[in-house]
Amino acid sequence: MHSDHPVIRLKPKTNAQRLRHGFPWVYDNELVTDRRTKAIAPGSLAILQDHGQNTLGLFAVNPNSKIFARKISDDLDCAVDQPWFAQKIAKALALREALYSQPYYRLIHAEADQLPGLIIDRFSDLLVIQPNAAWVDQRLPALVAALSDILKPSSIVVNGAGRARVLEGLDDARYMALGEMPSDAIEVAMNGAVYFADVAEGQKTGIFYDQRPNHKFVQDLAQGKSVLDVFSHVGGFGLAAMANGAANVTCVDGSQPALTLASRGALATRAETPFEAIKGDAFDVMGALAGQGKTYELVICDPPAFAPQKAAREAGLRAYERVARLASALVAEGGYLTLCSCSNAADIERFRAASIRGIGRAGRQAQLIYTGGAGPDHPHHMALAESSYLKTLVFRMQ
Amino acid sequence: MHSDHPVIRLKPKTNAQRLRHGFPWVYDNELVTDRRTKAIAPGSLAILQDHGQNTLGLFAVNPNSKIFARKISDDLDCAVDQPWFAQKIAKALALREALYSQPYYRLIHAEADQLPGLIIDRFSDLLVIQPNAAWVDQRLPALVAALSDILKPSSIVVNGAGRARVLEGLDDARYMALGEMPSDAIEVAMNGAVYFADVAEGQKTGIFYDQRPNHKFVQDLAQGKSVLDVFSHVGGFGLAAMANGAANVTCVDGSQPALTLASRGALATRAETPFEAIKGDAFDVMGALAGQGKTYELVICDPPAFAPQKAAREAGLRAYERVARLASALVAEGGYLTLCSCSNAADIERFRAASIRGIGRAGRQAQLIYTGGAGPDHPHHMALAESSYLKTLVFRMQ
Repeated sequence: MHSDHPVIRLKPKTNAQRLRHGFPWVYDNELVTDRRTKAIAPGSLAILQDHGQNTLGLFAVNPNSKIFARKISDDLDCAVDQPWFAQKIAKALALREALYSQPYYRLIHAEADQLPGLIIDRFSDLLVIQPNAAWVDQRLPALVAALSDILKPSSIVVNGAGRARVLEGLDDARYMALGEMPSDAIEVAMNGAVYFADVAEGQKTGIFYDQRPNHKFVQDLAQGKSVLDVFSHVGGFGLAAMANGAANVTCVDGSQPALTLASRGALATRAETPFEAIKGDAFDVMGALAGQGKTYELVICDPPAFAPQKAAREAGLRAYERVARLASALVAEGGYLTLCSCSNAADIERFRAASIRGIGRAGRQAQLIYTGGAGPDHPHHMALAESSYLKTLVFRMQ
Repeated sequence: MHSDHPVIRLKPKTNAQRLRHGFPWVYDNELVTDRRTKAIAPGSLAILQDHGQNTLGLFAVNPNSKIFARKISDDLDCAVDQPWFAQKIAKALALREALYSQPYYRLIHAEADQLPGLIIDRFSDLLVIQPNAAWVDQRLPALVAALSDILKPSSIVVNGAGRARVLEGLDDARYMALGEMPSDAIEVAMNGAVYFADVAEGQKTGIFYDQRPNHKFVQDLAQGKSVLDVFSHVGGFGLAAMANGAANVTCVDGSQPALTLASRGALATRAETPFEAIKGDAFDVMGALAGQGKTYELVICDPPAFAPQKAAREAGLRAYERVARLASALVAEGGYLTLCSCSNAADIERFRAASIRGIGRAGRQAQLIYTGGAGPDHPHHMALAESSYLKTLVFRMQ
C-alpha cells in the first residue's frame, strides 16, 4: 500500500476503463459501499481500486454526494497542501495571463483546472472562491495561503452558497478569508466597458465572465445602433455595445439593484450615450414595447436558466421560444437578435430549434450568423467536454 | 393562376408544413413527378403546390438533381432579373460591411443569403462566383450585371467546377465574366496577415474565409511562440500567428504551390520572422518531427475533409484521431493544440471525441478552451442551421 488512505472499490460491473481514460468522477452507485466506506468523513482522500484491486488513483470522497469520489491525482502519496495548490494555481494563471491583458477572469474552473468542484473568480486584487466540494471546503487555509502567496490579493471572499453545495450536502458558508469586504460595488473591466459588481451580495448582482467572447461579437456590430438589452443584469451586453459606440442603450431587468449597477456602469463606460433602465418582468416589458411599436437595431435576451435540469426541459424550451417570439417583434429590419441560454438541459440543437421556432412564429425570417459558448477562462475537462451549458446565438433579421 | 410558370405538386405524404415554415428545398422523391414535370428544363421557375393545391411559393427546378426544387420567392410573379439580384446582393453586402473593415469576405453564402446554390467570394475588386445550381447558371448575365453595378469590380471569375455542380448534373464551366484573370496570385488581407491566393488555379491554392475567427483566436495566443501549422495550405493559421509576433513558423503541406504562396505570405506579413516550409505527407512529417524530439508551443492541424459523406465517417474519424495523436506528441507542456475538421459527416460530438481519444492515446492530458465554427460571412439559413461543417477545437496541453 502506497499510503495510509482508505481504499474504495468499484463494483464489478462499473466501467473502470472510463476512469482509466481520465473520467474524473465516481458516482455513489458505482462503488462497493459497505459500512466502512459510508463512514469515511466527507472530504477525506481515498485510494480508488477496480474490482480486481488495480489502483486507479487518489480521490476525494464525499459519502453525502451522488458524486461520491472526485479524482485528485495519480500520485497516491501526494500531499494536498499549499505547494500542491500553488502548482495548480500557477498553471491556471498562466492560461489566463496568456488570454487577457487585465486581471479580470475566472481563475479556476473546477475539474478542467484539476481542482474538482472549486471555482475562483478574480477581480483584480479581490478573489471570490466558491468551494463546491467537501475536500476543498476543508482545505481552504492551504488554498488561501497559496492564493495569497502567488497573487497578493487584498481581499478573498468565500462564497459558499448555492445549489452545487446543496448537492454535496454542504452548509452555506460566506465569509472573508482575507481582508475586508468592499463597502461598495467593485469596478470590472471587460471588452473596453466598465461594469460594477456587488460581490458582497453574491450572484444576483455579481458578474459573469463566461459571456465575454459573445459580448465582444455583439459589440463589434453595435456602432451607431440602438440597443435593447433584455434580462440585462448589470449590463453585460448593453455596456459592451456602448463601449463600441452604440447610439443608445436600454436595459431591462427585474432587479432594481442590478439596474442601478448597470446605470453606474453606463456612466463610467460612456457617459454621453443615452441610457435607459426599465425595471419589470422581461416578458411584460417586451410586450409593452411592441405595443408601442418600438424597434431596435440590436436586441439581446440573456435570460436566467429556464431549463436547469432535465425535468424542466420542455417548459424551459417553451419559455425560450416565447422569448424569441417576443424579442423578434422588437428588431428592426436588417437588425440583429442575440438569444442566450445558460441551461444545462437545453442542448444547443434544442435551444437553436426553439429560438428558430419563436422567430418563425413572429413571422420573421433570419440568418444565423454566430454560435458562441463560454470563454476560454471556462475550459472543459477532456472527459466532460460535452457539458457546455452556455449557448449564444446571433441572428440577422430580414 | 398568378403567373405562367408550370406547377409542381407535392405527394400526399410529403411534409408541406416544413416548407411552409421556410425549409428551402424539395427533394425529387417528395414530388409527383409525371412526364410533364420531368420534362421541365433545368433552371426553370415553377410554382410549388401541396397536394391540396395550396400554393407554397416560387421554386427553381432541376429534374437532374436530388434537390429537385429550391425556394426562390414567396412572390409568384417576381422576375429573377438584375434588380432582383441587386436587392439580394445589397442585403448581403450590408452584413459583410458591418462585419469587416476590408473588402475580403464571402459575399454570398447560398440559401442563407436567399440565393440558393450560389457562392460568391470577394477579394477586393476581384469576385469569384461559384454557380452551383442550374437556375443561377442560366441567369449569370443578370447576376454579373448586378454585381458590376453595385461593386464595380475589375474582374469576375466564374468557377463552375466541383462536386456541388456534379450533384446538379452541371458541366464544368470556368471563364472570366468580366476583366482579365490576374497573371499572378492576389493579396488577401485577413487578421493583420497578408495571404497570397491563386484564384486562377481554383481551390487548391485559393483561400478560405471560413476559418477567420478561429485564426484570430489562435493568433491571440501566438505572441513569442514557436508555431507548427500542419496541412497549412497557403498559411492560414501560421501567417495569422506570425502577424501577432510568433517567434517562428513552420508550415507543412503536400502541395508545393501552396507552400510557395505561404512563403510569399510570410515575407509580406513579417519578413523578420523565421519561416520554414516542409513539403510532405503530413502524417509522415509529424512522425519524423516527433522522431527528432521536436516540440512547438502552438501546433495546428487543419486537414482536408476526411469524412465528407456518411460512408466515409468511420474511416474519417480514425484519421482525425490519428492526427490528434501524432500532433499531441509535438506540443510542448503548457502549449496549445488546434484541431480542425471541415467534414460534413463528422459532427462536433464525434469529432471532439475522436480528437480527445487521440490526445489520450498520446498519453497527454488537456483542457478544451475553445470551440469555433465558420465565420459570420458564412451564415446559416434558419431551416438548415444544423449543417455546420466546420469545427475548430483548441486544447491546452498539460
